[in-house]
Amino acid sequence: MDDIQSQFVEKILANTSAALKTTGEAFAPSNIALCKYWGKRDASLNLPINSSLSISLGKLGTRTSIRVSDVDRVVLNGAELDAESSFALRVQGFLNLFRPALGDPCFEVITENNIPTAAGLASSASGFAALVLALDQLAGWNLGRRELSMLARMGSGSASRSVFEGFVLWHAGCLTDGTDSYAHRLDYEWPEFRIGVLELTASAKPVGSRDGMNRTVETSALYESWPAQAGADLVAIRDSIASRDFRLLGKTAERNALSMHATMLSAWPPLLYLMPESIEQIHKVQRVRSNGLEIYLTIDAGPNIKLLFLADNEQDVCAAFPNLQVIRPFD
Amino acid sequence: MDDIQSQFVEKILANTSAALKTTGEAFAPSNIALCKYWGKRDASLNLPINSSLSISLGKLGTRTSIRVSDVDRVVLNGAELDAESSFALRVQGFLNLFRPALGDPCFEVITENNIPTAAGLASSASGFAALVLALDQLAGWNLGRRELSMLARMGSGSASRSVFEGFVLWHAGCLTDGTDSYAHRLDYEWPEFRIGVLELTASAKPVGSRDGMNRTVETSALYESWPAQAGADLVAIRDSIASRDFRLLGKTAERNALSMHATMLSAWPPLLYLMPESIEQIHKVQRVRSNGLEIYLTIDAGPNIKLLFLADNEQDVCAAFPNLQVIRPFD
Repeated sequence: MDDIQSQFVEKILANTSAALKTTGEAFAPSNIALCKYWGKRDASLNLPINSSLSISLGKLGTRTSIRVSDVDRVVLNGAELDAESSFALRVQGFLNLFRPALGDPCFEVITENNIPTAAGLASSASGFAALVLALDQLAGWNLGRRELSMLARMGSGSASRSVFEGFVLWHAGCLTDGTDSYAHRLDYEWPEFRIGVLELTASAKPVGSRDGMNRTVETSALYESWPAQAGADLVAIRDSIASRDFRLLGKTAERNALSMHATMLSAWPPLLYLMPESIEQIHKVQRVRSNGLEIYLTIDAGPNIKLLFLADNEQDVCAAFPNLQVIRPFD
Repeated sequence: MDDIQSQFVEKILANTSAALKTTGEAFAPSNIALCKYWGKRDASLNLPINSSLSISLGKLGTRTSIRVSDVDRVVLNGAELDAESSFALRVQGFLNLFRPALGDPCFEVITENNIPTAAGLASSASGFAALVLALDQLAGWNLGRRELSMLARMGSGSASRSVFEGFVLWHAGCLTDGTDSYAHRLDYEWPEFRIGVLELTASAKPVGSRDGMNRTVETSALYESWPAQAGADLVAIRDSIASRDFRLLGKTAERNALSMHATMLSAWPPLLYLMPESIEQIHKVQRVRSNGLEIYLTIDAGPNIKLLFLADNEQDVCAAFPNLQVIRPFD
């Protein structure tokens, strides 16, 4: 916790009054970015260089409850975490931001992910979003979604998007104090939208996203072109959602993801999250698509591939990719 | 053959007089770019967007003889090619540029590559360089190396570098008539310099380099940053050769190659020459290097990996990469 972070949280909580309840509980969905967040303009406030756009994953996400306790405790998927484990430390560090406003309590946090293990779906996004929503309930702040989005952002950038369902846009903002960098839901449903998760590897990433994006911004010459491309991609994806132009959405999302990986490839030392299996599946998607199946892919900062397609093609896609886990975000 | 190409060749041959001999014969080495040529500013004259820098491969390359004949014939590695095969057509098209100056003869071309098959070493570079050198002998033009480099360029961009041994710099030039885009040898020897060829796959590339670079220039947003990066890389590599700073050379060459592949990855449709085996070997190089072995890699527009190292480490590199074919460019 640094002064800048404390001042930011104070600002967000300025017009609230706490009325501590016994417990707070909330669910937040995981999300997959169609236009990726890659690069920070401010590490302390988690302010991104570019705006991003995601789809929330409906019932897949994190349920968290929080209550005041005599010591800090974090229970993840039924098991109490060592207080010195990196996840427990990260949660405690995040809660430190809110203790002054609540009379310096300790907290018990019980959190459950129903995201399939190792599917390469970020749990930190839904995790910090659910924690903020639960905390808002506990404290009785009754904050608006915009403020909740900004508080979730302090835990993990992409968590700012997980306080909403459906298609979500996270504005990069331009203010240095971070008060214009929040997400909002786009007013479109697309019930036929499908995401297919190809689980390729469950091994931990050799370099975390935070370090990966810093290394890219600092050392990749090609990163210079990224913000403009991401800006153009975001507009194209938003338009494609409004007009239900799946081809435009898919193509733009795929190119956006591969371009993000491209910026990493030109970093030093080179960042290559893709594994041999990832390349095999990318080539397979290209092959299947050239045979006429309308299917695109996206990849986060990791090796796993997510497929994008519409309900009409679900059967064919599942035939081409056995063991695919299909997600229906608007179910 | 178009007018612009004919005019260019006329200009280069302007101060020569032909004195046709019975036969011309020459050898030209293959070359590997340490700073890659990627993107044309003029397709007709094969003028590049960025300057490039390569190392010629000593005795590995192409030996070609040419003589006047009653019909066009191309014999490659002992087998006469079908006149309609793509390689024979490419050779004939190239020779068309020179027939007017020599009284419209037909030619028999006999060409032998001693480059290991499928090692991912370009044979078009050494092939067109050897053809131009042999043609110069046959015609008795007695052209300088700079002019020979420009004529070889008309067959294949990277052939402009294969008329020289050692480290070679190909100037992009800026004139629209192509007369300032030629290669020259850098005046440095580095006898300890080693290249290791990892033969991963012998399959033909799904998209040729020419089409690949055009697609990248036309559709990749990240390509915008490439010319400036290549320019900076070239200066760093030239300096590293002058000061024998192998670490700087290796790092810059590796990042340059991966950045070229990065520009392809952000093209549409995405260009992914890398195969699962390539990724495995890139990860292995990173692992071996982080264990202290001074080794770097470069990759052309294909799946095969070339290792860069110094003589001192040859034994350790061969132990880590069995079946490595080691090339000593200054032998």
